[in-house]
Amino acid sequence: MTDVHPAWLPPAALRAIGSRRVSVRGDGLLVRTVIAEVAQACGRYGGAVVSGGADLVLAVSTVDCGPEGFAVSRDGGVTTVAAADPAGLLYGLFHLARLGEAAFGAPHPPRVHRPGHARRMLDHWDNVAVHPVMGQVERGYSGGSLLWHDGALREDLGRVTGYARLLAACGINAVTVNNVNVHATEARLLTDRLGDVATLADVFRPYGIRVHLSVNFAAPRDDLGTADPLDPRVRAWWALATDAVYAAIPDFGGYVVKADSEGQPGPFAYGRTHADGANVLAAALAPHGGVVHWRAFVYDHRQDWRDRRTDRARAAHDHFVALDGRFLDNVVLQVKHGPVDFQPREPVSPLIAAVPATDVAVELQVTQEYTGQQRHVCYLAPMWSDVLRCARGMAVLDGLVGVSNAGDDPFWTGHPLAQANLYAFGRLAWAPDLDPVAILDEWIGLTFPAAPDELRETLHAVMDDSWRTYEAYTAPLGVGFMVRPGHHYGPDVDGYEYTPWGTYHFADRDGVGVDRTCATGTGFAGQYPPALARVYESVYDCPDELLLFFHHVPYGHILHDGGTVIQHIYDTHFAGADAVVAMRDRWARLPVSSVGPAFAARVSALLDEQVRSAAEWRDQINAYFFRKSGVRDAHGRRIP
Amino acid sequence: MTDVHPAWLPPAALRAIGSRRVSVRGDGLLVRTVIAEVAQACGRYGGAVVSGGADLVLAVSTVDCGPEGFAVSRDGGVTTVAAADPAGLLYGLFHLARLGEAAFGAPHPPRVHRPGHARRMLDHWDNVAVHPVMGQVERGYSGGSLLWHDGALREDLGRVTGYARLLAACGINAVTVNNVNVHATEARLLTDRLGDVATLADVFRPYGIRVHLSVNFAAPRDDLGTADPLDPRVRAWWALATDAVYAAIPDFGGYVVKADSEGQPGPFAYGRTHADGANVLAAALAPHGGVVHWRAFVYDHRQDWRDRRTDRARAAHDHFVALDGRFLDNVVLQVKHGPVDFQPREPVSPLIAAVPATDVAVELQVTQEYTGQQRHVCYLAPMWSDVLRCARGMAVLDGLVGVSNAGDDPFWTGHPLAQANLYAFGRLAWAPDLDPVAILDEWIGLTFPAAPDELRETLHAVMDDSWRTYEAYTAPLGVGFMVRPGHHYGPDVDGYEYTPWGTYHFADRDGVGVDRTCATGTGFAGQYPPALARVYESVYDCPDELLLFFHHVPYGHILHDGGTVIQHIYDTHFAGADAVVAMRDRWARLPVSSVGPAFAARVSALLDEQVRSAAEWRDQINAYFFRKSGVRDAHGRRIP
Repeated sequence: MTDVHPAWLPPAALRAIGSRRVSVRGDGLLVRTVIAEVAQACGRYGGAVVSGGADLVLAVSTVDCGPEGFAVSRDGGVTTVAAADPAGLLYGLFHLARLGEAAFGAPHPPRVHRPGHARRMLDHWDNVAVHPVMGQVERGYSGGSLLWHDGALREDLGRVTGYARLLAACGINAVTVNNVNVHATEARLLTDRLGDVATLADVFRPYGIRVHLSVNFAAPRDDLGTADPLDPRVRAWWALATDAVYAAIPDFGGYVVKADSEGQPGPFAYGRTHADGANVLAAALAPHGGVVHWRAFVYDHRQDWRDRRTDRARAAHDHFVALDGRFLDNVVLQVKHGPVDFQPREPVSPLIAAVPATDVAVELQVTQEYTGQQRHVCYLAPMWSDVLRCARGMAVLDGLVGVSNAGDDPFWTGHPLAQANLYAFGRLAWAPDLDPVAILDEWIGLTFPAAPDELRETLHAVMDDSWRTYEAYTAPLGVGFMVRPGHHYGPDVDGYEYTPWGTYHFADRDGVGVDRTCATGTGFAGQYPPALARVYESVYDCPDELLLFFHHVPYGHILHDGGTVIQHIYDTHFAGADAVVAMRDRWARLPVSSVGPAFAARVSALLDEQVRSAAEWRDQINAYFFRKSGVRDAHGRRIP
Repeated sequence: MTDVHPAWLPPAALRAIGSRRVSVRGDGLLVRTVIAEVAQACGRYGGAVVSGGADLVLAVSTVDCGPEGFAVSRDGGVTTVAAADPAGLLYGLFHLARLGEAAFGAPHPPRVHRPGHARRMLDHWDNVAVHPVMGQVERGYSGGSLLWHDGALREDLGRVTGYARLLAACGINAVTVNNVNVHATEARLLTDRLGDVATLADVFRPYGIRVHLSVNFAAPRDDLGTADPLDPRVRAWWALATDAVYAAIPDFGGYVVKADSEGQPGPFAYGRTHADGANVLAAALAPHGGVVHWRAFVYDHRQDWRDRRTDRARAAHDHFVALDGRFLDNVVLQVKHGPVDFQPREPVSPLIAAVPATDVAVELQVTQEYTGQQRHVCYLAPMWSDVLRCARGMAVLDGLVGVSNAGDDPFWTGHPLAQANLYAFGRLAWAPDLDPVAILDEWIGLTFPAAPDELRETLHAVMDDSWRTYEAYTAPLGVGFMVRPGHHYGPDVDGYEYTPWGTYHFADRDGVGVDRTCATGTGFAGQYPPALARVYESVYDCPDELLLFFHHVPYGHILHDGGTVIQHIYDTHFAGADAVVAMRDRWARLPVSSVGPAFAARVSALLDEQVRSAAEWRDQINAYFFRKSGVRDAHGRRIP
């Protein structure tokens, strides 16, 4: 087997800890995990686990830093990490790893760190049985599943242990172990294959991670002939099933449900609301302290493209706003960050602001379905940071959920640099105000503990703006969805234009974009709080990067920078493809030794593909809009 | 199991024969088949097989009608079918079935019938093992394979016997039993699974049908490490393998080869020509009287769409013209009827006229890959008749090859009315000058022996113009390939526009079409004989239905009927979709009893789908060109 890359926890990431005399105080499973980490590092780097005379103390105590929080102080040559619970101690340990020697410098009073979101969850879209279309992992670009193989739980869960450790080190505390599209085999995880889930819970538990399960809303139907959430027998069925889950897994996290969405069953079949549907599961979970993550990704995927009044972007808000206040306390509404579907640029979902009486978690896509499928460098933290700033301005978020990008690939994430996305997701879930560039710096420091300046500068040069570069050479100005149907890799401007999927751009010879205004369009802009609605409603105030999401404009429409839409399309596509060539050149100048030959070669090969693909995007988008508009490039560049 | 429909051989199709006193004279397997057919019909309809005093005589004799031919005469109250070989007698028998009572009317001197093509072949694109993408039958729309099931030869070959009988009744004398894309399992038919082919040969033989086998050009590579056709070991390998085939199947027909095409291996890998490649197989077959069908479908399927000088339509001619005269005598160049790929409208392939020293077979697609996939009524004989008229004006054809549309569906062909395509293919292979309407009449007469006028008129009304109707609501004016990539069902105007497949329309805001002229385009028009080349080269003389195949013209270009291209697009698409509604209405008025409930219901359900699909085609094509051209419909109809 190929060596597995250590990601952001190579041994040397704990060198500063391992070279100290360390005292660990407290009890319980997670404290034992901390002790084991410390002992292993000390064994390697000459430190020692001691009971007295320590220069590093990690202690569970009555410090006021809330659940999972911790406080770091330095005084009299001793660095102290104090936490109110063992999980906080674990997070404090990995915080020290990030600090490295800096944790042992000048004295300072306690600095308290608390998680920005109570639940920091990764959803694995992993199928137990290989799906005929989606394979083992739906939208997975990193090999097979870490958890499942060919219908069964993996026999060797060693990599899952390593994965749990990596997740804990960036702050994740919840994992959903199967795809939200729950097929027949996966449905059995709730019943006769519950043991598999319990086994996984045992692997994740020492790292402070609870397991959650995606369930099929229609699960009771086989036994009862119905899944009507108001049927007392259905209520009893869920209660019984859930009791069995908690008997096997006392700290089970809860259920994730995709209902009435893209063919999955749901309460609509029984004339019930999504609140009825979520509440029947929530009632079963409540006695045990579990939660339901109920996805708001509900829309008509059999839309008539000829009907311009129907707007998929409206769907989540239309379906869920009236239900605010009708969900039980342990229901979390899981809302995709944008109103459509994980495009590289969308406005933040207006639903987030519209359900003040409902707990909301925002769902991000760490796996790069629409952002280059882990063949393109696309560091997503800047996008997520923007999303979180806006979302947190609208509501207090209960949690952050990411669709995992990890698999059994030796680099975990297919593209080695996509490790940074997984790391950054965890870090933003913990600390949403972190600067994406600083997070990347953290990731570099941990992953390459001896990183020379040249490597650090190269990684920043290649990654910092890679999301905006990706945006530049793909669908322009927020219009989205110009991808090949089905697999969603590479350009196809009209690929979804005349389909039932509700994802259109309406380009004609005069202009392009979707009129979502209240004045003349679908009214989607009116779903936002008034101040934001006014901005989006106005073709002049609407930010350029979302212009075509909200407005249908002529190709000659003038953007805020004074240029036209059509020239912007040409300019960004030439520049975006050029930027990828520059990224490749920059990478090629890096000595292989700074990252190791396998890492270097994988990145190089993928940059070749990114250069090819970006040129393909550039040429298809430019050719499409040149053929349609007839407007020549102002700089006379070749458009095929 | 559902009852299998008898297609064009219900018992009553042989009523006129079965009610006679019949004498059959001659020896051999095929004569025994004739005797068995006659005896069965007589058992049913009160006639008798007699040695003297017959009123119908079927005799092998020294009559001068060539191989497979026969002569029918009537004199003194006796109808006589005379044939020089038993195969002719079998064809004469089924000819009588077509004539029915008319064969026993007024006296007439011998009328001689000779086949128009020596080889009348159906190619089954059936896979032995289910292919992950293409399934059991590639481009099959009639259920599973009649021959193979899930990796093995079917145990019950009863339907294959029935199929062989149907094929003989329309004139087919050769069947290729596996897909031209030869995967690993299918490659074994030439080696350790040869017994399966021998078993099939035994089933087809009594009906005068030889089996052929698609082989993989690289087959010797596993044993020899090379398939270089000039390597003596490769020559010996093919000779040995072929000797083994003939030891098992003395009347084996020969090999079919798709080489250097869409990923299949071929002689290019060894720097050899297609003549070298074909000849190594031909040399192995020659001692046994077998032939190689070498497909001319060779083109670059990894073309850069940005390169407008490369033209897939040129490829077959470019590859094969220089090889004329360099093939052994038993090589047949199998040429698709059009230069691209089985579109509803293409010019006839210029290669047919360009290789006078080479035997040529024309390949038609009976399975309706691009003509509605047997969900749409599309009676193809009118197209094939046009093709054959043109092709036979260019060259003497050695054979006609059709890709089969039959499967294990109870109606054989998915759409019950698609039986007529299979029947018509056989009939045109035998008698290329037949009128398509007359063939349909034959098919109706055999299939519905007691057809009332109402049924006959309905079938003509629904089917006669159905190909032109299909053409009307799909890609306009010969431009082709506006289908969904991959499965090829339904519209997607730009689906192939920016792909490597070489199938483009180049529509922009000003016009549409492919400039294939010598003056300004790819020069493809110059591949035709001078008279035809001049017609196609001229934007004024080029037939309207091929205009966009040969020319890029403005939307305002005036057609021969005085209308513009854009208005023609709108008009034909509205009219085509309306015509399908009329077809459905007409069918709905037919009493179910006239065709039986299962037949009627299947056709009705498929007409519903055809109405839906035609409206979708109309709206996508019209919307696409309206958005691009900005020209409104002259009649103010709604374009979405």
